[in-house]
Amino acid sequence: MPKPNAFYAQSGGVTAVINASACGVLETARQHKDKIGKVLVGKNGILGALDEELIDSSKESKTAIAGLRSTPGGAFGSCRFKLKSLQEDAREFQRLLDVFRAHNIQYFFYNGGGDSQDTANKVWQLSKQMDYPLQCIGIPKTVDNDLPLTDCCPGFGSVAKYVAISTREAALDVASMCATSTKVFVLEVMGRHAGWIAAASALAQNQAGDPPHIILLPEVPFEREKFLAKVKTTVQQKGYCVVVVSEGTRYADGTFLGETGGAKDAFGHAQLGGVAPTVASMVKQELGFKFHWAVADYLQRAARHVASATDVDQAYAVGKAAVELALAGKSGVMPTIIRLKDSPYRWKIGEAKLSRVANVERMMPKSFISKDGFGITAKARTYLAPLIVGEDHPKYKNGMPEYVTLKNNLLEKKLPTTW
Amino acid sequence: MPKPNAFYAQSGGVTAVINASACGVLETARQHKDKIGKVLVGKNGILGALDEELIDSSKESKTAIAGLRSTPGGAFGSCRFKLKSLQEDAREFQRLLDVFRAHNIQYFFYNGGGDSQDTANKVWQLSKQMDYPLQCIGIPKTVDNDLPLTDCCPGFGSVAKYVAISTREAALDVASMCATSTKVFVLEVMGRHAGWIAAASALAQNQAGDPPHIILLPEVPFEREKFLAKVKTTVQQKGYCVVVVSEGTRYADGTFLGETGGAKDAFGHAQLGGVAPTVASMVKQELGFKFHWAVADYLQRAARHVASATDVDQAYAVGKAAVELALAGKSGVMPTIIRLKDSPYRWKIGEAKLSRVANVERMMPKSFISKDGFGITAKARTYLAPLIVGEDHPKYKNGMPEYVTLKNNLLEKKLPTTW
Repeated sequence: MPKPNAFYAQSGGVTAVINASACGVLETARQHKDKIGKVLVGKNGILGALDEELIDSSKESKTAIAGLRSTPGGAFGSCRFKLKSLQEDAREFQRLLDVFRAHNIQYFFYNGGGDSQDTANKVWQLSKQMDYPLQCIGIPKTVDNDLPLTDCCPGFGSVAKYVAISTREAALDVASMCATSTKVFVLEVMGRHAGWIAAASALAQNQAGDPPHIILLPEVPFEREKFLAKVKTTVQQKGYCVVVVSEGTRYADGTFLGETGGAKDAFGHAQLGGVAPTVASMVKQELGFKFHWAVADYLQRAARHVASATDVDQAYAVGKAAVELALAGKSGVMPTIIRLKDSPYRWKIGEAKLSRVANVERMMPKSFISKDGFGITAKARTYLAPLIVGEDHPKYKNGMPEYVTLKNNLLEKKLPTTW
Repeated sequence: MPKPNAFYAQSGGVTAVINASACGVLETARQHKDKIGKVLVGKNGILGALDEELIDSSKESKTAIAGLRSTPGGAFGSCRFKLKSLQEDAREFQRLLDVFRAHNIQYFFYNGGGDSQDTANKVWQLSKQMDYPLQCIGIPKTVDNDLPLTDCCPGFGSVAKYVAISTREAALDVASMCATSTKVFVLEVMGRHAGWIAAASALAQNQAGDPPHIILLPEVPFEREKFLAKVKTTVQQKGYCVVVVSEGTRYADGTFLGETGGAKDAFGHAQLGGVAPTVASMVKQELGFKFHWAVADYLQRAARHVASATDVDQAYAVGKAAVELALAGKSGVMPTIIRLKDSPYRWKIGEAKLSRVANVERMMPKSFISKDGFGITAKARTYLAPLIVGEDHPKYKNGMPEYVTLKNNLLEKKLPTTW
């Protein structure tokens, strides 16, 4: 009897460390060849399973697999693709099981955020209904840090570190220039619903009053006058003002800042994701201060060169733990990170039921947001601080990080391409 | 007789390594206490001399001075302030000499770009006319890499490295997502007139066809249809397209793609920004591809965490050389970097007359730009490649780089504040 194979896929927006989780899965599976045959990886996430485009990871060298630990992005391709619900149309799920059956896949490792954990849960439900032996394990991943039941989400610590460092560096620049030039600097960061990433910029502060002077969070309705007053006071007191704004910041009526303001392109279309220029223009129009703005966009979540070593370790650990949970006979669960101690940070791996993780968004608690709504509390700082600790510099060659490219050889298809 | 003092100031936009030049000046001056008394530093650049706001650098510890080598921004403050011409109004220059006389300053070290080298030259001219003994040495600095007579400009290598790495990282992200999501990514980088920074993004390529697929340079008039056709072809062939656009990219008629309502800075330069969203919207409108865009802005020139070790070495070396040139009796000159060999890169310090450096902008040579105008040539690659080599990671504490903050104690004023 050939050993059952495993399926692994990367889902949703990628991160600086999702490949470290892949590395954890693949290295751990290779240590258990008595129980796991090959790990077949979905090309472009779950689409690889639907399309029977399965990458044979056994063709990759040990060195290449090890290199995944320090390579950003999704080495096998990811996707933004939501399966239809079981009630609505179970055919997609049945197709997955057909492909799994054809390739003797009995382990399902799905690496993603809330939507993906929901998918993993549904695949598990269906496999039980259909009496197909499949152990389904979710692997947490999201820069948004909004999964429940885990101390944090792999991917977040590195973007938090990038944003904190970039904020400190840019603030030093603005402080140098403010006497005669730029007085207000606005950095836009990710976070559509939860302000974890913007909040992490506060780690740039050594003491009260240090930049960033204003953090705009999606959790706090934007009040234009209050914001402008704070910018004005800050420039008067400090000579300059650094603002970090979450892309999801919105007015009390729910309108995103990025949807309003004067930010239209040459064709009169509202620009997407332009919260920083909107905020900067507001400052210029009302207060007249010279401004600069930056939008970090993918740079923040791809910045493996400045990843948090803690985050890399956790990303690897949840990948490894996923395989171990499967080998221990578990299914329908996701490894989590349990905080044992704040300082020095101590953590261990736990587990949560997929049904309790799926589609739950963890927002910043109110106790993490300062009274004026423009900063974070000591409690938030205690939570965030350890997540950016430690450096895990990639190897460099000719001045550039050495990121691996895999062969990504596809298995021959066994099923019809239409279904 | 007290030893004559030196004046040092940082001018114009700051960089990740301008403080490394300050470190070179201060450490070298401290080694020559027989000839140089104190180094008095202008608070906010040349304004510090005009306002007699002189920082006593002798009050800073050896450790703090050493820490400047790995601290971005301008530790003493910089400024965007252009002195009036001698013909127009010599009073500012005379005030400088009055302040210098009052503080026994006989060395003038001015750390900046083309405008600043012009200022240094004028100060030198006037000091000769007035028979005031002042040795004027310019110290090159600009991320724009547009000073003539030097192989490169300290500050450029680090922003080049940041842009090359960020491009590679973001490209890995886009490549992962393109099957179902983002197909075009646009990164806006600095470079008002010269495309050196955008060109450096090509160092992200390991081989032909690698991202960035399109580089938009200020030297090449922007042709909308040609650009869109190239984006379309690239997405068809590669599945995605990475575009790096210089903020100074303009149409054939000279209009900048990102001109923002005629806002000008203190030097009368148009304030740019917002080219990336303009380009991205164009792609969306005409081709319908899902896009993301980033504007690196100050993040790129402040990114000391990923500085080029070559750049840091050169920045320090020109600061050191400035003091040595002064001690050798030179004046009206700027230390330069002379390339001895491409690979492995070998360089030494040379010198150029300020009169030949002042107000000359070095554009990218035509031989550096590929035939289609969207990339660089092998010759350009040979030039650029060594400038990003080597890492000079700052020390970290609690996950954040340890950047120094100086005391910046001001000397007591000796002159009337109005003049």
